[in-house]
Amino acid sequence: MKKLKQTIDSIKHPDREVYEKALARLADQARPAGCLGELEALSARLAGIAGTLDVQLKNKIIVTCAGDHGVVEEGVSLFPSDVTTQMVFNFVNGGASVNVLARHAGARVFVADLGVNYDFKPDLPVFHKKIRKGTSNLAKGPAMTREEAVQSIEAGIEIVEELLRKERVDMLGTGDMGIGNTTPSSAIIASFSGIAVEKLTGRGTGLGDKALQSKIKTIKKALELNNPDKNDPIDVLAKIGGFEIGGLAGLVLGAAANSIPVVCDGLISTAGALIACELAPAAKDYLFASHRSVEAGHKFMHDHLGLEPILDLKMRLGEGTGAAVSMEILDVATRILAEIKTWSEVNIKDVQNKS
Amino acid sequence: MKKLKQTIDSIKHPDREVYEKALARLADQARPAGCLGELEALSARLAGIAGTLDVQLKNKIIVTCAGDHGVVEEGVSLFPSDVTTQMVFNFVNGGASVNVLARHAGARVFVADLGVNYDFKPDLPVFHKKIRKGTSNLAKGPAMTREEAVQSIEAGIEIVEELLRKERVDMLGTGDMGIGNTTPSSAIIASFSGIAVEKLTGRGTGLGDKALQSKIKTIKKALELNNPDKNDPIDVLAKIGGFEIGGLAGLVLGAAANSIPVVCDGLISTAGALIACELAPAAKDYLFASHRSVEAGHKFMHDHLGLEPILDLKMRLGEGTGAAVSMEILDVATRILAEIKTWSEVNIKDVQNKS
Repeated sequence: MKKLKQTIDSIKHPDREVYEKALARLADQARPAGCLGELEALSARLAGIAGTLDVQLKNKIIVTCAGDHGVVEEGVSLFPSDVTTQMVFNFVNGGASVNVLARHAGARVFVADLGVNYDFKPDLPVFHKKIRKGTSNLAKGPAMTREEAVQSIEAGIEIVEELLRKERVDMLGTGDMGIGNTTPSSAIIASFSGIAVEKLTGRGTGLGDKALQSKIKTIKKALELNNPDKNDPIDVLAKIGGFEIGGLAGLVLGAAANSIPVVCDGLISTAGALIACELAPAAKDYLFASHRSVEAGHKFMHDHLGLEPILDLKMRLGEGTGAAVSMEILDVATRILAEIKTWSEVNIKDVQNKS
Repeated sequence: MKKLKQTIDSIKHPDREVYEKALARLADQARPAGCLGELEALSARLAGIAGTLDVQLKNKIIVTCAGDHGVVEEGVSLFPSDVTTQMVFNFVNGGASVNVLARHAGARVFVADLGVNYDFKPDLPVFHKKIRKGTSNLAKGPAMTREEAVQSIEAGIEIVEELLRKERVDMLGTGDMGIGNTTPSSAIIASFSGIAVEKLTGRGTGLGDKALQSKIKTIKKALELNNPDKNDPIDVLAKIGGFEIGGLAGLVLGAAANSIPVVCDGLISTAGALIACELAPAAKDYLFASHRSVEAGHKFMHDHLGLEPILDLKMRLGEGTGAAVSMEILDVATRILAEIKTWSEVNIKDVQNKS
């Protein structure tokens, strides 16, 4: 709990002066004001975070947090739990979707085991942060203890700290792997938002109509049974969350505390980010929403966090895939601020009437 | 007219067999089916066009077509016409927005003078395809003659042919520069769609309310006065178009005739693409829509062309900036098809129930 509290306390707002300078330079570039839309907003935020107008996102890292879920026994996923383990090996071998997309974006993927139901050998190159081999079934009781919830968030913070002991990190991306984890994520959104579970629950990896109805019932049952306190984010995480979701919350807090921009992936990563920002609202300043997933409920979280998703490509995979693709756009955003010339630099008189 | 006819006649459909193979491989990759959304659709189309599952978009070129517009005398733009000329020099010097964004996407920018009101020296490294030094004021009569319209389209085709004589082109992007050119573009959409001018006309580079009303009046006047025949795309281009818009139509036709995927930029490029596809519907198979501009009317064209825009970043600059940014995503799309492993390749049993 001490690490968590210290981390939350150490989150500061980005550099307002550099942010304002960035906006001024963008407005003075040889093009109609505002015409690069969201790219301008992104570039100014990144400048404020980095404290410079020439932001270099050289070392980009995606951390994919993995965990298993007791709720899978309720039939909420098309895939069996052991796919979580198999995908961890797939990530380590570099053949998964997030590896391909990260490679293209010039980012590296690290995997973190927060609670996978498998005994990985200690020399497997992943962050070994297992809390327990899968959560308890949240439809039958709390997913984890309060202590485990704190431990999972602190594990995420530790991952950031361990990365930073080895290297400078210019941008962090979050990703998830955990069969069944759209169920706790939807439950978390329902808990914080008060929106009906039916409206927030999606098909995950591709449930049919009947299985979707069953998933909705499971989430409702979990909420009624556990009655999480939405004013206590750790209670929400403990009762209806997941170990990797706690880890994802910790990544956001750790990034914010170290002034690293953090781009969060789809539904599960955003649920983690939501818990982080409920614990520490200032973390929002460091957060970027990679894409709008097709999963219902994702939009609520973006609105709640005040974030405009960068992409809307109907993706719904997780792993950090959306974070990886959006890093290409965030990279572009840094370039427009640094490289597009101003009117005076190109000797074109600014004739624009701003009325 | 002979070149135009020959080009239209030579456009063939992409390779259906490779397209189907691409879809089959995507469906068999170690991830839930369809979860990479639009990226999958893009990658399959690119494979069909290239005739291979391992599409390499190595040589990407953006051609920015420039031209001036007599209608500027009606006060439809905040900028004076001579900014078109100045921006041509800015492009050539590499300091404009499109240069920066293209550089990041690994693309090169070529500029084409289709009708700029300036005598560029012959050694300026642009495509010298000037039809005339600016169109006539379409609010007072036809913007150009029918012959000039054909000539402008053929100039665009020639640019593709001249590029191909020197090098292989893996992807072509279109871009525009022409002060006042949202006016002919909106007029073209109104003409083809029959939608009210009020609904289709936007603020261009940033018109105020009064100037917007005046722009709408100008477009209405142009449509009434010239009465373009929407079943005759060359008539539409001639009466209410622009030289660079003709050039942009020619780029699309030239790319399609040479089996090159072509990604079109914002409102003006899409107006050019619309004319190309009205002349040769098969050209649509080679066309990609880079982004949804904030300009009203852009959505109509995308729907009409059956294209889903790749990005929605509230951009409204032109130059080829949207094409450049979307090339990053198109590049990613080629990698997912080629590099993500299938279930059998990673030895994970495909347990997905596709119900």
